[in-house]
Amino acid sequence: MIFPVTELTPELIALSARADDALARLLPPDEQPPVELHRAMRYAVLGGGKRLRPLLVYATGSAFGAAPEALDAPAAAVEIIHAYSLVHDDLPAMDDDSLRRGRPTCHVAFGEAMAILAGDALQALAFEVLANDAALTVDAQTRLEMLRVLALACGSHGMAGGQAFDLAAVGRKLAPAELERMHVHKTGALIRASVRLGALGAGCADTRALDALETYGHCIGLAFQVRDDLLDIEAGTEQLGKTAGKDVAANKPTYPAILGVEASRAELAALTVRALDAIAALGPHAEPLRDLARFVAERRA
Amino acid sequence: MIFPVTELTPELIALSARADDALARLLPPDEQPPVELHRAMRYAVLGGGKRLRPLLVYATGSAFGAAPEALDAPAAAVEIIHAYSLVHDDLPAMDDDSLRRGRPTCHVAFGEAMAILAGDALQALAFEVLANDAALTVDAQTRLEMLRVLALACGSHGMAGGQAFDLAAVGRKLAPAELERMHVHKTGALIRASVRLGALGAGCADTRALDALETYGHCIGLAFQVRDDLLDIEAGTEQLGKTAGKDVAANKPTYPAILGVEASRAELAALTVRALDAIAALGPHAEPLRDLARFVAERRA
Repeated sequence: MIFPVTELTPELIALSARADDALARLLPPDEQPPVELHRAMRYAVLGGGKRLRPLLVYATGSAFGAAPEALDAPAAAVEIIHAYSLVHDDLPAMDDDSLRRGRPTCHVAFGEAMAILAGDALQALAFEVLANDAALTVDAQTRLEMLRVLALACGSHGMAGGQAFDLAAVGRKLAPAELERMHVHKTGALIRASVRLGALGAGCADTRALDALETYGHCIGLAFQVRDDLLDIEAGTEQLGKTAGKDVAANKPTYPAILGVEASRAELAALTVRALDAIAALGPHAEPLRDLARFVAERRA
Repeated sequence: MIFPVTELTPELIALSARADDALARLLPPDEQPPVELHRAMRYAVLGGGKRLRPLLVYATGSAFGAAPEALDAPAAAVEIIHAYSLVHDDLPAMDDDSLRRGRPTCHVAFGEAMAILAGDALQALAFEVLANDAALTVDAQTRLEMLRVLALACGSHGMAGGQAFDLAAVGRKLAPAELERMHVHKTGALIRASVRLGALGAGCADTRALDALETYGHCIGLAFQVRDDLLDIEAGTEQLGKTAGKDVAANKPTYPAILGVEASRAELAALTVRALDAIAALGPHAEPLRDLARFVAERRA
């Protein structure tokens, strides 16, 4: 292993727990009507997960001097978006998956109609949380920019667009550039947005730093997906908490299928080096960002 | 007829066309990748419709002195949200409808997976349009408030919540208060938000006026639904552009089913009177808002 970080550092584990707390607080209580919808929303968001996107918000924001409490809302917002996307991706009409984070998927637990609604309501909640946040210390103009960044990352030129490229790709042989385009949108857009929201939430307006973070986000977004594809063939269902070997079974285009396993591993290493190089100048406060890049490359689930 | 306005006035028809133009401009071009997603999004939004919600934005904004170009973005945003909600409501797991605005529903035309994605991407687009708008003349703080209003109207305490109350109601006998709660959320939230966005977009900060508009929006939102329920039993499929008689067939709780037809008509008239009373003090510039209240009560489709 080149980057021997298979687990999160204690500092990142603490921030992950912080994200959980923020999410539990910002989601509507499940005794509040409509009860079933709120249960489904909490189930979808609070069911574990690595909280990678919130961690990127916290790690980037803290690299630029923001206090964690000023980052809770954007951290929660990106995770809420991520959770909604998983709920909709798992639907029978989409990936038709029944297992997620070691539990039944939302539509298996709550029915398909409720899962569609829970996803819809979660997307709205993410924007509400960001628009509403009283703890954010940045000015209104920056907050508007944060909302714009989040909306762009979610829409047809971001995550939803990547999902559409994915739909169009099933059963087709993709060129490596097409595979990259799909992932730059599907998982990359929200990961880049997480980094940018952290920087904006810290009031960072340094163009060179923002460009460096964009490269970092781009590279770890792709690295995350390469690692995901490798895990799908290397790991078991229990380890992953979701159905393993599914990509191959569904004839999905993956890095190992298109580049081969060894070339995929080399690509993962190259992306991680590029990510680390991009933020080399950011100094010791960016260490958690470096830890995250290493974790993305080496994680076992 | 008490309010003999079965058609929109020429002024409102012109504003409806203006909303169409804004939507056509703000939606991604369908030759832009992902092509199929953008086609589905445009199909869902540009397929006609009365544009009631944009009209409420324009009519309210102009009552407080805003120019139409300052209202295009919020007008488009509420219609994009409305269109997304129709796409998801029509899905097989939800209302399972195949006809909308006289054409095949989005999932019939584009497949279920693409319809889910199109709805998701449209919701994000609405927030993007509002966060992005260069023509809005109000300050950043007011724009943030507009985004907050839109997010609240869409989420689990607004439209999505109403859909959840609706799901829970099928086959049950609802009390009139429960029926009202469902509609206050399901259609009412976005209608009230449309009125509020128009006022905010005009820079209106007069609490009394905002309260009056809230009452107006509340009443016409409910009136809209009562009329919808009455049309479902009075009108034919061709006239409606959607499947008529469907509520009864699906054993859905409706005003005529719960109150009876005559009491529903009386309720519609009472709500319209209350809506008109609420904005009586707003003067001649609010006349389009009054026209809209009358239209909502008397429309034939």
